[in-house]
Amino acid sequence: MDVMDDYILHYAPDNASLVVRLALEDRGLPYRTALVDRASEAQKGAAYRKINPVGLIPALETPRGVLFETAAILLWLADTHGGLGPAPGDVQRGHFLKWLIFVSNTLHAGLRLTFYPQNYVGDAPEYHAALRTGTRTGLDTQLRLLDAEARRAHGWFNAAEVTVLDYYVACCLRWAGLYPQGDTGWFDLARYPALWDLAESLESRPATKAAIAAEGLGAKPFTRPEPPQPPEGSAT
Amino acid sequence: MDVMDDYILHYAPDNASLVVRLALEDRGLPYRTALVDRASEAQKGAAYRKINPVGLIPALETPRGVLFETAAILLWLADTHGGLGPAPGDVQRGHFLKWLIFVSNTLHAGLRLTFYPQNYVGDAPEYHAALRTGTRTGLDTQLRLLDAEARRAHGWFNAAEVTVLDYYVACCLRWAGLYPQGDTGWFDLARYPALWDLAESLESRPATKAAIAAEGLGAKPFTRPEPPQPPEGSAT
Repeated sequence: MDVMDDYILHYAPDNASLVVRLALEDRGLPYRTALVDRASEAQKGAAYRKINPVGLIPALETPRGVLFETAAILLWLADTHGGLGPAPGDVQRGHFLKWLIFVSNTLHAGLRLTFYPQNYVGDAPEYHAALRTGTRTGLDTQLRLLDAEARRAHGWFNAAEVTVLDYYVACCLRWAGLYPQGDTGWFDLARYPALWDLAESLESRPATKAAIAAEGLGAKPFTRPEPPQPPEGSAT
Repeated sequence: MDVMDDYILHYAPDNASLVVRLALEDRGLPYRTALVDRASEAQKGAAYRKINPVGLIPALETPRGVLFETAAILLWLADTHGGLGPAPGDVQRGHFLKWLIFVSNTLHAGLRLTFYPQNYVGDAPEYHAALRTGTRTGLDTQLRLLDAEARRAHGWFNAAEVTVLDYYVACCLRWAGLYPQGDTGWFDLARYPALWDLAESLESRPATKAAIAAEGLGAKPFTRPEPPQPPEGSAT
């Protein structure tokens, strides 16, 4: 079995599937996309839950079955195809893993709290505001930690060879600057100079150019994010 | 370098470090422990932040540096020593990864919202109640998904060979039944029969017996959790 064949990425524009697309593009892996129609909440419907029972985007169909969870897909792609992070056994592997998991369960999870407060505190606007305010203190601390880590020359973050961690963080920076629309004033990428450099360097890569075209992300998707203008589907 | 030497687990009783202890015990790996004094909030102090800048428990000192993030440590131990989950390249690897990451960034992260609401919505009790109520609907759904997964015979969850995912889920079940003390009525392990079986089967393992003794967890730590009576330190 050739695991490089027949990837199908279930995606919506500017959703977490973007990170998986960037990884696939970066390695030149052949894949097709299947749009999940967020406007009709297709991600919560029975058909999509047969693909991903958790009801979240992305899912990646592979010859070995359907994968979901962004960090799991990223790590699996890196380990399966190489070149997107330290391999198992590499002396840097554990350090790469700890920050990848941190981005998944803390930074990305925290951003999700601020994007979808209704999933955690009900519908009252004052509760949404409290959750956003309370979570953002932590998000700023987390971004400062990542900024410090991005200054270290360990070779798997903000380094010569791009990793899935780089793309994952860059997408989180984009989302922090863009969502929820009209309430992003707390975030200023300039406060994290090493992350700015990382984000800017990724914008010139062919993988990013391909994602920009496919999802309508604008010229500077990480450092100067604009609301997406996708050729199909919707981000929210 | 022998990576099996000289592990030091920075722990507090019944904290997420418990999962790491169980993995170390299960594989018979030599390790020492270093208590983090939660009563004085040592995990947030400057000394501990030199070990784990994120300020959370656990951290694991290894000959390759300090690791943190529970799921990262678990995965690194499994890959380094074998026998705690499908290895890279195994046809089941991606499926194992997706549920491990799900437990880390959704189930465990959701439990943390209910344990530490003050970190997300400020100090008002009504906001704490809203966050707990809102999050628990999702937690129940997540446990049902895991219960369904535990009925499948894929060999890496609730199967003959124990994995880090088994221990991680069992600890989450314990914590759901125990914390925050006085407000666990929403949770009933009997609603998830396959997870009950998993939890019960782990209770007879030598690794669990060792953890019970070390952290004062009581005779049935996963199916009938009681507040810990640790020989040193405190859980909260």
